Amino acid sequence: MKKVKIIEVHENVFNSNNVAAEELRHELKDKGVYMLNVMSSPGSGKTTALSKLINILKDEYRIGVMDVDIETSLDAQKVADLTGVRALQIHNGGLCHIDAEMTSKAIEEFGVDDLDIVFLENIGNLVCPAEFDTGAHRNMMILSVPEGDDKPLKYPLMFSVCDLVIISKIDTMEFFDFDMDKAKSNILRLNPKASIIPVSAKTGEGMEELAKWIRAQL
Amino acid sequence: MKKVKIIEVHENVFNSNNVAAEELRHELKDKGVYMLNVMSSPGSGKTTALSKLINILKDEYRIGVMDVDIETSLDAQKVADLTGVRALQIHNGGLCHIDAEMTSKAIEEFGVDDLDIVFLENIGNLVCPAEFDTGAHRNMMILSVPEGDDKPLKYPLMFSVCDLVIISKIDTMEFFDFDMDKAKSNILRLNPKASIIPVSAKTGEGMEELAKWIRAQL
Repeated sequence: MKKVKIIEVHENVFNSNNVAAEELRHELKDKGVYMLNVMSSPGSGKTTALSKLINILKDEYRIGVMDVDIETSLDAQKVADLTGVRALQIHNGGLCHIDAEMTSKAIEEFGVDDLDIVFLENIGNLVCPAEFDTGAHRNMMILSVPEGDDKPLKYPLMFSVCDLVIISKIDTMEFFDFDMDKAKSNILRLNPKASIIPVSAKTGEGMEELAKWIRAQL
Repeated sequence: MKKVKIIEVHENVFNSNNVAAEELRHELKDKGVYMLNVMSSPGSGKTTALSKLINILKDEYRIGVMDVDIETSLDAQKVADLTGVRALQIHNGGLCHIDAEMTSKAIEEFGVDDLDIVFLENIGNLVCPAEFDTGAHRNMMILSVPEGDDKPLKYPLMFSVCDLVIISKIDTMEFFDFDMDKAKSNILRLNPKASIIPVSAKTGEGMEELAKWIRAQL
């Protein structure tokens, strides 16, 4: 009984969220702003990899970053410090996701008219963020080597909704039982159209390919 | 408007969940069964560390494991293969948590009358599982070194509700910027009573101390 009630509410939320997401996507497109939703587990190295990517692209494009977190402004501060681009911290009130309406409000506050690319760094979580369309033009997610090659099997929705899967921290491959071929085939079985790019933010390996993928979207 | 609606439903769920959790806790206590709720990020090494712990304790106690996952039976199968103890896989229908009612149903199906300890391996997530009392007697969580020492700041509720924080994969300390003292002080500031035990399931370091902590609870 209780559970059915939750599901009903969620479904209403999902439907109205999809409408809001489509609206936001069109609104941004009309402004010439491209939004990327970046998802991952906690501690996958999202903020670090994103900062490196921005440093490659920031002379070609005007970039902004919106960081979602339950508390603290650590991530937005870190991106701002490492890249010098404009960053906004969004506190989502303890929720495990951000939806299109919340993203819209944040976009309004942030002001994106002077930007080409907005990165939305979603909350560290492989479940909830996958369920809510944020209104971004593309979804990307980061799977870090220490997490293991079986994560696509365990969090299938996340890997299904992403256009790009970045496999990060590949410089640590030798210290973990991570089979790159198995990870790739696990991802592609769920999502045959997914692009997969292995990177190391530490050594820089793969970062140029990642930047190339972003350029190709614009 | 929509957001308030979600929060209301959550509060109802939380209240009734707390009642169900208390009931389950007492019911298990009367049976002489001790339940531990194990939480962490995806890929923290929960299943591996738990299996090593069980192998240390299984000659002293009758142990069972219930593994929560969205899909797949990978974790329950892995624990069963590595330890030989009875394991049950719970599929939670895509939710990001398990509540006391779901745990109760799983306990009923699993059958725990012949057990001393039940480990509930919760879904890999640092947000939602912290919000739902499962009815376990103690909460423990695993923070792995690759995730970083700042995680307590970013997921404060999780670190506040845990009696024990295991810092895992300490054999990889030299490859990551992880400050053990900072991690400990971040945890203790949120939760001064928390026990903190650094371990490596790979080298076995800290595993005896972890087993000792469990024995002391019984």
